[in-house]
Amino acid sequence: MDFLTVLNDIQTQIQPLLGQGKVADYIPALAAVDSKHFGMAVTLNTGEFYGVGNYQQPFSIQSISKVFSFTLALRAYREELYKRVGREPSGNPFNSLVQLEYEQGIPRNPFINAGAIVVCDSLISHFADHNSNTVEQILHFIRACSHDESINCDRNVFSSEMQYGYLNIALANLMKSFDNLENNVDEVIKTYFRQCSIVMNCQQLSRAMLYLADHGSDPITGRAFINESQAKRINSLMLTCGHYDASGDFAFHVGLPGKSGVGGGIVAVIPGKMAVAVYSPALNKSGNSLVGTKALELFTTMTGLSIF
Amino acid sequence: MDFLTVLNDIQTQIQPLLGQGKVADYIPALAAVDSKHFGMAVTLNTGEFYGVGNYQQPFSIQSISKVFSFTLALRAYREELYKRVGREPSGNPFNSLVQLEYEQGIPRNPFINAGAIVVCDSLISHFADHNSNTVEQILHFIRACSHDESINCDRNVFSSEMQYGYLNIALANLMKSFDNLENNVDEVIKTYFRQCSIVMNCQQLSRAMLYLADHGSDPITGRAFINESQAKRINSLMLTCGHYDASGDFAFHVGLPGKSGVGGGIVAVIPGKMAVAVYSPALNKSGNSLVGTKALELFTTMTGLSIF
Amino acid sequence: MDFLTVLNDIQTQIQPLLGQGKVADYIPALAAVDSKHFGMAVTLNTGEFYGVGNYQQPFSIQSISKVFSFTLALRAYREELYKRVGREPSGNPFNSLVQLEYEQGIPRNPFINAGAIVVCDSLISHFADHNSNTVEQILHFIRACSHDESINCDRNVFSSEMQYGYLNIALANLMKSFDNLENNVDEVIKTYFRQCSIVMNCQQLSRAMLYLADHGSDPITGRAFINESQAKRINSLMLTCGHYDASGDFAFHVGLPGKSGVGGGIVAVIPGKMAVAVYSPALNKSGNSLVGTKALELFTTMTGLSIF
Amino acid sequence: MDFLTVLNDIQTQIQPLLGQGKVADYIPALAAVDSKHFGMAVTLNTGEFYGVGNYQQPFSIQSISKVFSFTLALRAYREELYKRVGREPSGNPFNSLVQLEYEQGIPRNPFINAGAIVVCDSLISHFADHNSNTVEQILHFIRACSHDESINCDRNVFSSEMQYGYLNIALANLMKSFDNLENNVDEVIKTYFRQCSIVMNCQQLSRAMLYLADHGSDPITGRAFINESQAKRINSLMLTCGHYDASGDFAFHVGLPGKSGVGGGIVAVIPGKMAVAVYSPALNKSGNSLVGTKALELFTTMTGLSIF
Repeated sequence: MDFLTVLNDIQTQIQPLLGQGKVADYIPALAAVDSKHFGMAVTLNTGEFYGVGNYQQPFSIQSISKVFSFTLALRAYREELYKRVGREPSGNPFNSLVQLEYEQGIPRNPFINAGAIVVCDSLISHFADHNSNTVEQILHFIRACSHDESINCDRNVFSSEMQYGYLNIALANLMKSFDNLENNVDEVIKTYFRQCSIVMNCQQLSRAMLYLADHGSDPITGRAFINESQAKRINSLMLTCGHYDASGDFAFHVGLPGKSGVGGGIVAVIPGKMAVAVYSPALNKSGNSLVGTKALELFTTMTGLSIF
Repeated sequence: MDFLTVLNDIQTQIQPLLGQGKVADYIPALAAVDSKHFGMAVTLNTGEFYGVGNYQQPFSIQSISKVFSFTLALRAYREELYKRVGREPSGNPFNSLVQLEYEQGIPRNPFINAGAIVVCDSLISHFADHNSNTVEQILHFIRACSHDESINCDRNVFSSEMQYGYLNIALANLMKSFDNLENNVDEVIKTYFRQCSIVMNCQQLSRAMLYLADHGSDPITGRAFINESQAKRINSLMLTCGHYDASGDFAFHVGLPGKSGVGGGIVAVIPGKMAVAVYSPALNKSGNSLVGTKALELFTTMTGLSIF
Repeated sequence: MDFLTVLNDIQTQIQPLLGQGKVADYIPALAAVDSKHFGMAVTLNTGEFYGVGNYQQPFSIQSISKVFSFTLALRAYREELYKRVGREPSGNPFNSLVQLEYEQGIPRNPFINAGAIVVCDSLISHFADHNSNTVEQILHFIRACSHDESINCDRNVFSSEMQYGYLNIALANLMKSFDNLENNVDEVIKTYFRQCSIVMNCQQLSRAMLYLADHGSDPITGRAFINESQAKRINSLMLTCGHYDASGDFAFHVGLPGKSGVGGGIVAVIPGKMAVAVYSPALNKSGNSLVGTKALELFTTMTGLSIF
Repeated sequence: MDFLTVLNDIQTQIQPLLGQGKVADYIPALAAVDSKHFGMAVTLNTGEFYGVGNYQQPFSIQSISKVFSFTLALRAYREELYKRVGREPSGNPFNSLVQLEYEQGIPRNPFINAGAIVVCDSLISHFADHNSNTVEQILHFIRACSHDESINCDRNVFSSEMQYGYLNIALANLMKSFDNLENNVDEVIKTYFRQCSIVMNCQQLSRAMLYLADHGSDPITGRAFINESQAKRINSLMLTCGHYDASGDFAFHVGLPGKSGVGGGIVAVIPGKMAVAVYSPALNKSGNSLVGTKALELFTTMTGLSIF
């Protein structure tokens, strides 16, 4: 298939949508981006790469980082991890305290904020046992699976998050009160916000996610990151819980496991074949990239690659 | 692939599990079944059929009927239907009133009880305009897509349900109070319980679901029931919401769109290829067939047919 | 104290408020009243009576009836009653299902609708054991404590309620599903709505409530209806839970145990001294009589009879 | 009335209960008290004082401090305060986040933790405008109304609370996220925990609360602290919301406005007459002093001073 033509077609078709939606503005560092940016990248399991538009424009990956940290936690704890975080869709907004209180501090899944905070906490404990720093290890993993040593955090975004992150701090303290955080709340929150502030572009993201398109191993180098069952778990979680309150709609429209971030990025995995990343910062009312969601829908429609 | 060998292997492997779990006993008519029954059936889009065990044992399809009624409602109302019922995972137990009260009488999706009751109500209105009876029309549709005119309701199950269905009656009255039921509550509830009392066997079910494995059309006769987009919607909903509180786990273990019923049946769809039905009445703690879930997991593992 | 002067002063002072607020219109039978009616009546423990305005205008007592039925249930079941209905403020709207689901079908107190429905159910069981009808017994009790044999139900109001009472039917079915109703749901609901449709005027109400102003006995005839502890319980419940979501405000502004009804009536008890009834059908946004609440506040301010 | 005889009788009658209940042990500093302590004190509006048992034993007043801080906030902000904190019973546990999230960060009343935290925050803003420190001002007020300059905070209790106060920190951050805290969360929490760590004995407490028994003024010195309407508000709030989930039961059994603390103290006000304080650290399952509640019930029974 001629993916470059597909990407070019998509770029043409989404033009009228640029300008719709609303860039995340809960912190100044995110509000400053160009709302009309659009980039899209495809990396095949064979190593072929196709990019269009601002596919090399770096952006804050935000919640997409949850896929990487969950991968590391699953590798470190295996089934034990599920004692502390569930695997089911939440049905509540991504930052709800209600469910967390009702279910005694056990978050529904690792992709809602509370779940990702627990995952961070588990990594801090794990890496401390190995005299190692969690943020460094997450970066190390992302650099390894994207084959790009330049990837790093954005200090501005991090300090903005710290300044306005009251709800996440509330979630963390609530879980601490239920004994579901092992480490100091402040350290956990800092680690979580650092992870969210990681900056990548579409090319790097599509390359990095390739291990989820090949049963846990990098299809190009053959290096195994996680096992097949773990990759399947991550993909199924991305399908059922990857897009906040619009996960069901994404499953229908796009029909691929995927994860979005409030920074405007979305990645999607086509098992056995490739990974796709898209960036466009204006969000729809569910908090997912408006143009990004549409672009991925066009992609599966044009290529027939939906899993349904 | 030699599906008969696969089914026989599965039947052998699940033997130690027979006897685990618990048959639904909230009504006497369901409690009376043989808890050690196991049947499984595969119908390919080509028409080939494979069955094993009690695959011709009739059972109460219960919530599996929601797939058929939702199909008819989607055909009748298209996007209009979503004004009255959502499309997202619920995160709450299948019969929760909390979410319904919080969201003003709009159920999260058509596969929780409240959603299926709204779908029933919409069909009653629709078929009344055509001077037709909803239960007859649902049966008519099921007979058409399973190519079996013998399928019918079970009067015992129906009257048991009516006698103990207080929670569903509560859900219906709550939605009526929010103006989200158009017809008489009693009529809607009767229609809903009649639909749930439909009796089928694995062979019939796997045949009936084939339209969801071929973009909305019966792959054998070519007859179109719904369009491709509608079939995709139903499949994605089955994946994200088809198994109550264990939808995420089913997505991971089985990796197929599917729908379970408290009578012990589960159907799963492999888009483009086939439909599978399994029956074993003892349920796990999420209310899904314990052996049935395991059998489907073995099926995708052995055939490599998971969508992930 | 010259209570007639006090009542006349109040009538003068509330004139500018007549016309504010909104008459209950969820059923036609209630919407038909004259929104500018105002009546107020005081009956002292000595038997002295004072009335002003439309104090002989009959109106639907609605939730005020819950005081009478709770009195009968407390007499019949004593402490046993609290296994089925609580004694604490609810903090949720009077008709919320959330609390009921969360607390497994046990309503917070006998003055929210769910609680009053359980009380009805308990009376049906109790009087059935004595071959007697609950509505007849409630009427019998009200006639006895008001010394007026003419008091009766309003058939119009009753049938209107039955027609639009979906939320109450939902509450009853939810409690039935939790095994907290002993009798047929339909019979319980009919009894509940008949009780709510009882018609009284301010003179009758102030006379009827006198047993709560004298430790459970009619201060004029000396007849004991309930014991002192039971009267104290009812008074404390009226103070903490008698006015839906505005119970705290009523306690502050009026400072008396009281109970309001959506028909526009309010009764208040001054322990050891008297009972006061007021009627004015336009409601404030909490569902209590707007002018009635103000009139009672003026009454306690002018007489210094607040308990605080 | 011979109050000393009454108090002695009560002390005799509660002996069998000493040893029942459970001392608060969520922080070590509270767990260290003698669970068999019992003290009770009455101060009349005339200045007469009666004490029995350990009435001079200092203890951590904990939530009783909320009465003092609310008094100061009501004096500073009057009706404006209610934009930030409600006046109705909560019906949920004292530390619930659910209600707070549902109602957008506005706590139900000033006596649940969230409400008291908002009150603290309002005082910080108010006293900052007067270049003054809130804890100093609360202490200043308590010393003034108890006529005892020796009253102070307990550093141990304060630092214990800070160490384990995750749930309160969660509440504060949640309210900050809803813009219902004006000051730095850490400063607000520190102020709140300092206020809770104030140490008093029964004699001091009964003297301090006298302004609520005399329309807002100290009946002995005549000094006005708040106006009559504000005192009425505080008393009615204590009656409807003063005892967590057992406020209704306290209203019935004791029949007085009162406020309890998890340190084992309870104060009650008899408007127009006196204030009573009791201390016994073992708590019942609602978190109120078990023996203290019983002692106050005996007091109103023996003296006939219940408001009902």
